[in-house]
Amino acid sequence: MKRLFVLALAASALAVSASAQVAQRASQPAASDDPVAAERIKPFQYLYGSAEAAGLSIQAWHALVDYARQQVRHRPKNGVVLAEDASFENPHFVRCGKKPLAAVFDVDETVLLNLGLESNAAAGVPTGGPMVGRWGSSGSAAVAPVPGAVYGVNALRKMGVTVIFNTNRGNKSAEGTAAQIAAAGLGHAVHLKTLYLAGDDQMGSRKDGRRWTIAKNYCVIAMAGDQLVDISDLFNAKDLSVTDRRQAALHGWVAQMWGNGWWVLPNPVYGSGLRGGLDEIFPADKRWTDTGAND
Amino acid sequence: MKRLFVLALAASALAVSASAQVAQRASQPAASDDPVAAERIKPFQYLYGSAEAAGLSIQAWHALVDYARQQVRHRPKNGVVLAEDASFENPHFVRCGKKPLAAVFDVDETVLLNLGLESNAAAGVPTGGPMVGRWGSSGSAAVAPVPGAVYGVNALRKMGVTVIFNTNRGNKSAEGTAAQIAAAGLGHAVHLKTLYLAGDDQMGSRKDGRRWTIAKNYCVIAMAGDQLVDISDLFNAKDLSVTDRRQAALHGWVAQMWGNGWWVLPNPVYGSGLRGGLDEIFPADKRWTDTGAND
Repeated sequence: MKRLFVLALAASALAVSASAQVAQRASQPAASDDPVAAERIKPFQYLYGSAEAAGLSIQAWHALVDYARQQVRHRPKNGVVLAEDASFENPHFVRCGKKPLAAVFDVDETVLLNLGLESNAAAGVPTGGPMVGRWGSSGSAAVAPVPGAVYGVNALRKMGVTVIFNTNRGNKSAEGTAAQIAAAGLGHAVHLKTLYLAGDDQMGSRKDGRRWTIAKNYCVIAMAGDQLVDISDLFNAKDLSVTDRRQAALHGWVAQMWGNGWWVLPNPVYGSGLRGGLDEIFPADKRWTDTGAND
Repeated sequence: MKRLFVLALAASALAVSASAQVAQRASQPAASDDPVAAERIKPFQYLYGSAEAAGLSIQAWHALVDYARQQVRHRPKNGVVLAEDASFENPHFVRCGKKPLAAVFDVDETVLLNLGLESNAAAGVPTGGPMVGRWGSSGSAAVAPVPGAVYGVNALRKMGVTVIFNTNRGNKSAEGTAAQIAAAGLGHAVHLKTLYLAGDDQMGSRKDGRRWTIAKNYCVIAMAGDQLVDISDLFNAKDLSVTDRRQAALHGWVAQMWGNGWWVLPNPVYGSGLRGGLDEIFPADKRWTDTGAND
């Protein structure tokens, strides 16, 4: 296994140095005097520590609030939750009728940064499933709001839009999750009213059922998540290849939805965005061989 | 060094698995039958291959175009380029006068995905500075537009906003860079008119000088980049710690600029967002110890 890791990290180190030079910058200064710690922290630096990711998140929340304000002014016929019989080929949305307005958000890395949990992995402490479960139930205040999220949920509530959280944490952690939402300054969440979790229905980690439950009672004008399962389970269809999934987001009616009812928050640390082999990420017609390499 | 890499990758692998379970997901399926390749591709999967990053980029371009349309309708007094004597404490912007409207964009990982170059690093081919230089001059068509960028630049030009690129590629690669911009479907760029590069003035990789040159002739209503140096050199001040830099983006007038004249495109692969040690990324008051770990 050692060789595997060495090559892996070496490649990524090279990528960083090469790309840094694309930007004509000197190579990164060591983040720490301890080279082990300096390497170990790298997967976490961008999302949890960079000004770039902060700007990226804040601009998304700004756009979401501006969009919601327009929807409040001109009430839409349809919400942004896909109907039960919708597909990529035949998209249509749950109708709004006279239902009150709501916005539906994932929790982890969408409104809440799990600093306490991730700091363990970043420090080299093994963090397995049971620990993650205990974190979810802990109600630990070692969290922060995603940049812009406090502004976002407050602005939405102020304009009369109900903020509803739909997370894939297990519903045994409902209390701890609500405590962390409150600790991050995101307000009061009530299980099965403004907070839905895995286990609240029979669909497990598939969120469509909970979305449809919410959309029965609300006109959902905006959804946001760091994973596309936070938008529709269509994106996690078993037969959807990494390439087809990317293409589905890039084209047609789906592409039009980004920033127009659907929003993504950055998360390069974990989740369904971290898939694909070399041939899927870099198609054969997008390779380049440096013929000058032997000059 | 081996131990360093082993621990590093192990930590990041744990982070992914832990966090994947935050989302109640089964651990990632191997991206490839070759475990070495599967590990090596990981740093590139999110930005270059995920549907999540595609949505994140498209929503930014949608918001930028909507914002620009408003500025075209109601011409602003000031642009969004900080004036020469501006500071975080005393921000003010170059005035617009009667100058024509423009939008200023970085190139690499802002409008252009450098697939051909990065595919080498992702495949384990060493990619050093000379190779990066040859890539910049190659004019290789092994590139793709950043999702949403073609829509963005076309919409801006259609509304009479001049699209100007300001990159830190060296100006010896002006021709190759213009060729890649064209190959990505981003149109025609002319050196020193709509394309500026490092070496075009005496400020090296600092972009403020080129921004001020552009702002002498244009009312710059929008700027976007994957690095904050694409917005202002203030963000790369030597004395600015990783923590202070993040805080600068999170608060006050700077926070208001994200999505309101300034935009960030995602890039967790390289650059100034990849800095900071454990204590900077996870402050002491945001740590959590799993007391149940020995259950």
